[in-house]
Amino acid sequence: MSKNVVIIGSVALGPKVACRVKRLDPDANVVMLDQRDLISYGGCDIPYFVSGDVSSFDELRSTSFHVVRDPKFFKDCKGVNVFINTKAIGIDREKKLVIAEDLKTGAKKEFNYEKLVIGTGNRPRTLEVVGHELEGIYAISGLDKAIKIREEITNGHIEKAVVIGAGAIGLEMAEALSDMWGIETTVVEVMDQILPGIVSYDMAKMAQHHMEENGVKFYLSEKVLSFEGDTRVKKVITDKRELDADLVIVSIGVIPNSELAKGAGLEVSNFGGIIVNEFMQTSDPDIYAGGDCVAIKNLITQKLGYFPLGSLANRQGRVIGTNIAGGRAKFDGAVGSFVIKLFDIAVASSGLSLQRAKKEGLDAISVFVAQLDRAHFYPEKEVMFLELIVENGTGRVLGIHGLGKSKDAVMGRISSVAGLLKYNIHVSDISNFELPYSPPMSSAMDILNSVANVAENILEGRAQPIDLTTFVKLWKDREEGKVVFLDCREEQNARPYVDKYSKYWINIPQGELKTRISEVPRDKKVVLVCNTGVRSYESYLILHHKGFTNICTLLGGLASVKNLGIDI
Amino acid sequence: MSKNVVIIGSVALGPKVACRVKRLDPDANVVMLDQRDLISYGGCDIPYFVSGDVSSFDELRSTSFHVVRDPKFFKDCKGVNVFINTKAIGIDREKKLVIAEDLKTGAKKEFNYEKLVIGTGNRPRTLEVVGHELEGIYAISGLDKAIKIREEITNGHIEKAVVIGAGAIGLEMAEALSDMWGIETTVVEVMDQILPGIVSYDMAKMAQHHMEENGVKFYLSEKVLSFEGDTRVKKVITDKRELDADLVIVSIGVIPNSELAKGAGLEVSNFGGIIVNEFMQTSDPDIYAGGDCVAIKNLITQKLGYFPLGSLANRQGRVIGTNIAGGRAKFDGAVGSFVIKLFDIAVASSGLSLQRAKKEGLDAISVFVAQLDRAHFYPEKEVMFLELIVENGTGRVLGIHGLGKSKDAVMGRISSVAGLLKYNIHVSDISNFELPYSPPMSSAMDILNSVANVAENILEGRAQPIDLTTFVKLWKDREEGKVVFLDCREEQNARPYVDKYSKYWINIPQGELKTRISEVPRDKKVVLVCNTGVRSYESYLILHHKGFTNICTLLGGLASVKNLGIDI
Repeated sequence: MSKNVVIIGSVALGPKVACRVKRLDPDANVVMLDQRDLISYGGCDIPYFVSGDVSSFDELRSTSFHVVRDPKFFKDCKGVNVFINTKAIGIDREKKLVIAEDLKTGAKKEFNYEKLVIGTGNRPRTLEVVGHELEGIYAISGLDKAIKIREEITNGHIEKAVVIGAGAIGLEMAEALSDMWGIETTVVEVMDQILPGIVSYDMAKMAQHHMEENGVKFYLSEKVLSFEGDTRVKKVITDKRELDADLVIVSIGVIPNSELAKGAGLEVSNFGGIIVNEFMQTSDPDIYAGGDCVAIKNLITQKLGYFPLGSLANRQGRVIGTNIAGGRAKFDGAVGSFVIKLFDIAVASSGLSLQRAKKEGLDAISVFVAQLDRAHFYPEKEVMFLELIVENGTGRVLGIHGLGKSKDAVMGRISSVAGLLKYNIHVSDISNFELPYSPPMSSAMDILNSVANVAENILEGRAQPIDLTTFVKLWKDREEGKVVFLDCREEQNARPYVDKYSKYWINIPQGELKTRISEVPRDKKVVLVCNTGVRSYESYLILHHKGFTNICTLLGGLASVKNLGIDI
Repeated sequence: MSKNVVIIGSVALGPKVACRVKRLDPDANVVMLDQRDLISYGGCDIPYFVSGDVSSFDELRSTSFHVVRDPKFFKDCKGVNVFINTKAIGIDREKKLVIAEDLKTGAKKEFNYEKLVIGTGNRPRTLEVVGHELEGIYAISGLDKAIKIREEITNGHIEKAVVIGAGAIGLEMAEALSDMWGIETTVVEVMDQILPGIVSYDMAKMAQHHMEENGVKFYLSEKVLSFEGDTRVKKVITDKRELDADLVIVSIGVIPNSELAKGAGLEVSNFGGIIVNEFMQTSDPDIYAGGDCVAIKNLITQKLGYFPLGSLANRQGRVIGTNIAGGRAKFDGAVGSFVIKLFDIAVASSGLSLQRAKKEGLDAISVFVAQLDRAHFYPEKEVMFLELIVENGTGRVLGIHGLGKSKDAVMGRISSVAGLLKYNIHVSDISNFELPYSPPMSSAMDILNSVANVAENILEGRAQPIDLTTFVKLWKDREEGKVVFLDCREEQNARPYVDKYSKYWINIPQGELKTRISEVPRDKKVVLVCNTGVRSYESYLILHHKGFTNICTLLGGLASVKNLGIDI
């Protein structure tokens, strides 16, 4: 007899499960429900539709060979029965049936299942402040809302937009509005950095500066108190200012849709994610769940985490499909891999940020390196920035971030480490990482190896580094006379700085340091700087060997400072 | 008392050891010898100097901040004493001294060591055939030869060049000669594919086709018998033809320079690589060796292998430096990572090729996939090709190759797997690989995941695939009437083929197959094709379920066939 499989939700996970089950078990009777009428699209893709990069929303729900994935497609090509506008309102685990409501007619329907899959996704957090119901305020939730936003923009009445929340979707929307439609766009974020929880503070500042250079305004550490307007929003009121706005995008995080699961008595985590085992089964083995509604083990912290990503939903969907068809596929968990294109740069990350690692109680440090992304003598090249987050004492690698203009190259370095993080790797594993080498693609001692080499030196006490934030603070206090900046570059590079800041900027090229050591002041803190941090590290070792103690070296060098937008 | 460290050889490994030792132990007395006068450059970088991409040879031996790494630089900036034109001719392990000869004066010198490092590199294999001593025939060995080749080219008398050997350096030289200097260039290779031992046959054919489209000629499975000319080479005579040549580059592999080590009684492998342990110590614990003269454990086969790469020499140099300074750093071995830029594409690889795996006695299969390198709806994208080499039965991943126009993206996918190979991973680890996802950078179900998904399906008997070579054979024999090609694409894509090849090309779009199954012939072999292999796989499953047995599906689809240059 053919197996009854019911799938609730049909954006990313559901369709993957459905197709996989039918491929492995063509006789299975697979039914997929969704409360909306647009199905099987990529939720992460919405900003590219709003921007106009993707011209029609049908492209977002098409196969790579341009067939629209609508209910007819699923029926004809996949043998899957889809019920749209059909909302699951209850699960009777005793009788093994799903109770649903046809949202057009109000009629109740029942679906018997042998295996049930919950792929109910998530919903955006709402900002329940005065005026939140005004027209022109949108949370990104589903393709239907995105279509309305794009209609508003193309109608041409939008001049100023405010994006609330500087997470991935918020920033992508800000870029879409600003870059593609020329809308004056401001991002308001309650935390003190963009991409909070995803990348560390210094790299976030660098990414923010790049967006600012491209015309996006940012107000961080700022809370939205209310919206003003008659029927339509006109102003966003924060705790520090008023901002004019014809359009507001609220993108302050998401909440797993686990109410249905909870109502059926299934286990749910404290943050609302449905709890599943490595086979993606809920606490009822005949009910699977996956995608944006589940809690997933963080393979670095070993705690339950939340990773609402279309990519993971796809992988989990395949695992569920295999298991429903009688296999034993596993999904172990995730380390959290991330990439975003922001104008001309990519920012990528895998594992924990420094702030996140500290929050988890880990004794973590972060190591920041700037280096060319291919052989320094090769004509085409860009500076790349990598940050490695490592645990003091053990040398365990907890995470890595990257930023740079060669977007695929940045992402390549991060994904090289992404797969390794769950193996509890040590910095020496990255020092010796066997990246393919050819001058047009990488360096013999690639930046990926370098960042680990520097981390090792720091862990073993061979350097006293300072991060960019500390450097900026020291620089701000430079007139107090307690600090001197020792420029380790050649004279022609250092001269403009020495001329401009003669009181606290001195120059001794690294190669001359040994013979000119008497010129280094012993009564002040000496901050060693060069372009990327290589020569200042060499100079540090020389001074350290000669008994200097009040010295430190700037990680990432002046190239990094420049990319923060600090005017030195 | 300060430690005496002597280093023989100063291209890649030597300088790394020297600098690392001095950083960790500034009091060490470090001496570095080299028989040539140009030191500390990247051997892998020579083709970019010959091409003119790199304008002066000084750039190849400069730091990233444009300081030339000559003996004075090592003395002043690094505290390392360099003796150039000084050839080590013997090692007295009893007395712990190196005997050397000044090649300018003939004078003998002795250097006492406490720790000795052998970094003697390798030398090119020579082609000892009639006429090999003629002018205009070069093996790439060292920067000095490269300078002479470039002089010859810039003098403008070179119209036709023959490159013998289609390994990495040979192909890079062919591109340099052809692309940058407009020289009519022919590559002759004794094996039946380019990049033998590095990538599998099908992908090599694809790379070759790309180079041919860019004007390079290839003669494979062809042996050079002699050279002709008066004083200067005029012709290359192979076992199949005569080729005119004003310039010949011989690039047929390298031999480790281990004679010095052997002479001192140190252990050397059967192929001539000096044997070292994980600390890079030779059979004499006071003598270290690394770089292109050592044998390294292949972490996939667990046998001794040979990996002459500047990148590994750098990593090994750092490990040796650490250990000489009193540390305990390790270098476990290598899996063999590779990347090359060939005109507009990159070809990358890590681990074993299919042919290599079979040679090692492994029951390996290879899985070939074509897919867009980012979300299919994103405007800028390219087709990428990945090949996964896996072990039958166990599902162990043995290697991966990639080819495509987004070079950094290709390399990123390969390096994502490079670090994992030594952990004995299963295809499911790649299926679930957590690649960062964003539509401008990757796909939700990325090609990297897809290639593993397809591999899993094949390993579990859910597909009967054929590779490109087999397809080409079947296509050649198409008139024999034993085979029919079933095109699973939509009608408008398939029509031109049906019109042209009505006798053996039929079209049933995948979505219509279930209702049109009676149209599929049961008396012939049915080869299922589509653009990339996705729809043909779906169709395969439908036919298989209906009892068809003489069916197979083309891996990589017609997109791959097209990139082989096969005219269908």
